[in-house]
Amino acid sequence: MFISFEGIDGSGKSTQARRLAQTLGERGLDVVLTREPGGSPGAEEIRRLLVEGGSERWSPETELLLFTAARRDHLERLIRPALDRDAWVITDRFADSTRVYQGAVRATQSQLVEELHRLMIGIEPDLTFVIDIAPEISLRRGQARGGSEDRFEGMGLEFQQRLRDGFHALAERAPGRIRMIDGSGSQDEVAARVLAALP
Amino acid sequence: MFISFEGIDGSGKSTQARRLAQTLGERGLDVVLTREPGGSPGAEEIRRLLVEGGSERWSPETELLLFTAARRDHLERLIRPALDRDAWVITDRFADSTRVYQGAVRATQSQLVEELHRLMIGIEPDLTFVIDIAPEISLRRGQARGGSEDRFEGMGLEFQQRLRDGFHALAERAPGRIRMIDGSGSQDEVAARVLAALP
Repeated sequence: MFISFEGIDGSGKSTQARRLAQTLGERGLDVVLTREPGGSPGAEEIRRLLVEGGSERWSPETELLLFTAARRDHLERLIRPALDRDAWVITDRFADSTRVYQGAVRATQSQLVEELHRLMIGIEPDLTFVIDIAPEISLRRGQARGGSEDRFEGMGLEFQQRLRDGFHALAERAPGRIRMIDGSGSQDEVAARVLAALP
Repeated sequence: MFISFEGIDGSGKSTQARRLAQTLGERGLDVVLTREPGGSPGAEEIRRLLVEGGSERWSPETELLLFTAARRDHLERLIRPALDRDAWVITDRFADSTRVYQGAVRATQSQLVEELHRLMIGIEPDLTFVIDIAPEISLRRGQARGGSEDRFEGMGLEFQQRLRDGFHALAERAPGRIRMIDGSGSQDEVAARVLAALP
């Protein structure tokens, strides 16, 4: 079973991915918790190129290629081998993040994103949880965390709203795969909602 | 005018690219000399991921994505702006290197290389010089140079022969664009052959 967690910055998706991995592990399942960009040694090196530096460092197209290179490495070196031994793979972000972030930067790029995904990645998660929260709340959470990985988070409230709209639009197009989870309230409350939505 | 130099490792293409740039510059032309992978600050950073480390560091597909990301950055930040101001751009390697190297690593990947090129790069040089030389000679030249960028050069004589065959096959498919240049003899002799082949 291949599960991804998605959501805007500061939505709590990383926390929820970790909590689901822990819960499933306590049930005796073989669980691999990972994240994007990154997740394998090579992909982590590509991640460093992506998350550091100003927002004009890469064009949307170059950025898309770097994200896809990192995802391909992650897929080959970590996700596929884990799925092949029947482990559960839980990833903090996957291809939906690329769809939504690139779409929010440049709407005309959606077809390019899909073509590149089809050509070089191909796979979708069996199940995707989108942790849905108002950008006003997520932005405060993101800023509270600090750190240098502010390539996207620096873009402000209006950008985060476009991301949220993008995740809603994706969920409408793939209702069988994507479950919207109300991200408001305590971590325990959100974790309970995720577990309740597990098939 | 957009010109690329191609050839197997140690063929002398870098020397010949530099010499042609110098000759055209002495004629008063606006000439930009560049190289791949690299050629722009972002692409040079991606280059470092590509040229260092063992031959199993990246799969052929991930490597292809990284080369394409570096090329896209190089194209946007250096080649296009130079061509737009009517400069001559001379590059040491371009997309033909990817076609030939990836083809030599995994022949079944040719279609993927072309699809990715069409999707993300699109442009071809107006003119390509392939500096053609026997691998026995080029390999000695390459080993004499040393350095850590031995990702490809470490693969030996039989690999270099496959590369040479690949360049010959490419030249047959694009006779209008690609000129084969005999790379034997002195640098002056080869440089004279390049100039004679210039339209």
